[in-house]
Amino acid sequence: MDPNIILWGVGTSRTIRPHWALHELGLKYEMRPIQPRTGETKTAEFTALSPRQKIPLLQDHDLTIGESAAIVAYLARRYGTRENPLVPLDPDGYAKWLEWCFFIVTELDSTSLYVMRRHGTVKGLAHIYGHAPEVVQQAGEYFRGQLRNVDVALRDGRTYLMGDQFTTADILLTTCLTWAIDYGVGICDSAVPYLERTTARQAYRASEKTNCAVSPVAS
Amino acid sequence: MDPNIILWGVGTSRTIRPHWALHELGLKYEMRPIQPRTGETKTAEFTALSPRQKIPLLQDHDLTIGESAAIVAYLARRYGTRENPLVPLDPDGYAKWLEWCFFIVTELDSTSLYVMRRHGTVKGLAHIYGHAPEVVQQAGEYFRGQLRNVDVALRDGRTYLMGDQFTTADILLTTCLTWAIDYGVGICDSAVPYLERTTARQAYRASEKTNCAVSPVAS
Repeated sequence: MDPNIILWGVGTSRTIRPHWALHELGLKYEMRPIQPRTGETKTAEFTALSPRQKIPLLQDHDLTIGESAAIVAYLARRYGTRENPLVPLDPDGYAKWLEWCFFIVTELDSTSLYVMRRHGTVKGLAHIYGHAPEVVQQAGEYFRGQLRNVDVALRDGRTYLMGDQFTTADILLTTCLTWAIDYGVGICDSAVPYLERTTARQAYRASEKTNCAVSPVAS
Repeated sequence: MDPNIILWGVGTSRTIRPHWALHELGLKYEMRPIQPRTGETKTAEFTALSPRQKIPLLQDHDLTIGESAAIVAYLARRYGTRENPLVPLDPDGYAKWLEWCFFIVTELDSTSLYVMRRHGTVKGLAHIYGHAPEVVQQAGEYFRGQLRNVDVALRDGRTYLMGDQFTTADILLTTCLTWAIDYGVGICDSAVPYLERTTARQAYRASEKTNCAVSPVAS
C-alpha cells in the first residue's frame, strides 16, 4: 500500500525543515532521499511532480506542495493539535509568527545565506553562478546586521522565538543559524543557548539523521 | 482620536502591497508616507516601533507587524470576509497559496529582484552594496527561469493565480512583475493579460496613488 505522506529531498538546510516538522508532529512518512545537483531532481518521475525540479517536496495524499517554509506551515495547520500546534493560535501571536517566518526566509535565508551559497567558494556554487567575493562579504555582513533583530528578541531569555511555545518559526531560524555557523558567519550570543535548546529536541536529532545525504553531493 | 490602523511606508514594490490589501478589504487607515533611505526610517519614533527600521510597517490597534507578505496575509486573516477572503478557504487551496507566497517572496523577490536592486546600477543601490554586473545578470536570468513556474500556471487562462479568486498571492506576484518590467527584465507572455487584469482592479489603482512617494527618493 502506498503511504499517505512522502517527503522528497535530503542534504540541505532547507530539506531538513519538513523532516523536522514531521518528526515534531509524530507523523509516519516515506522518504525519497534525492539530493540537489545530483540529477535526481531532473528525472521524469520527479519533474512530473515538481516542474520546478526543487526539493524539498511533500506529497500528502493527492496534494503536492513545495517551499520548505510553506510545507512546515501546512503540516502545522493540517496536523497540529491543541497540545502541539507548532503555530501560535491567538491572532496577535499568529501575526508575529507570520512576520518571523517571512523575515527569516527572505532576510536571513534568501538575501543572505543563499547569496553566499550561490556566489561563494566555501561550500558554495561559485563555479556555477560566478565568483563574487564582494557580494558574498556583503551578504555575510547583511546577515549579521539582520541577526540583531533575532538578538533583541532572544535576549530576554525566552525559550523559543514565540515564547514558551515551539513553532515552525524555530525550525526556520534554527536551520539558518546552523547554516550560518557552517559558513563561518558568526551568530549572536543570545542565539547560542537558544540553539542548544532547539537542537537538543528529539525531533531535531531524528530529522538530522534522516536529512543526512546517503552519499556526498558532488557540487 | 487616533485611527486604529496606521500604515508606514511608500515608494517601493514592497510598500505598495499592504496599501493594496487595505484597499481590497475596504479598510480605512492613516498613512505615514515615509520612504527608505531618506533617513525617515531612522527617527526615534519609528525605531521605537520598528527596531529593524524597515518599511512597510502596519499598526493595528496594539499590534505592530512588518514584512509585506506577512502584513497582507495578516490583513486577510483578520479582515477577510467569506465573500472577499483574499486567501483560499479550502485546505488544499490554502496549502498551494502558502507555496505561492513563499515562492514569490524568496525566488522572485529576494533571490532575484532584490539582488538586482542591491548590486545594480539601473535604479539600484550598487553605490552602497557594491557594483557586481555578473551577479545582477545571473539574478535576472534566475528570475526568468523561475518565472517559467508562473508561466506554466497562468498558461491555462485562469483569471488569478489561485483560479477565480483574487488572493494576496496575486498582490505579491503583480508587484514582482511590475518591478521586473521596471528593471527591463522580460516577463512571460501569459503574464501580460494577467497583469492587465490585476492592475485594472480599482484597489490596485488606488494603492498605486497612495504608494507614490511625495518627493523622489535620492538613492
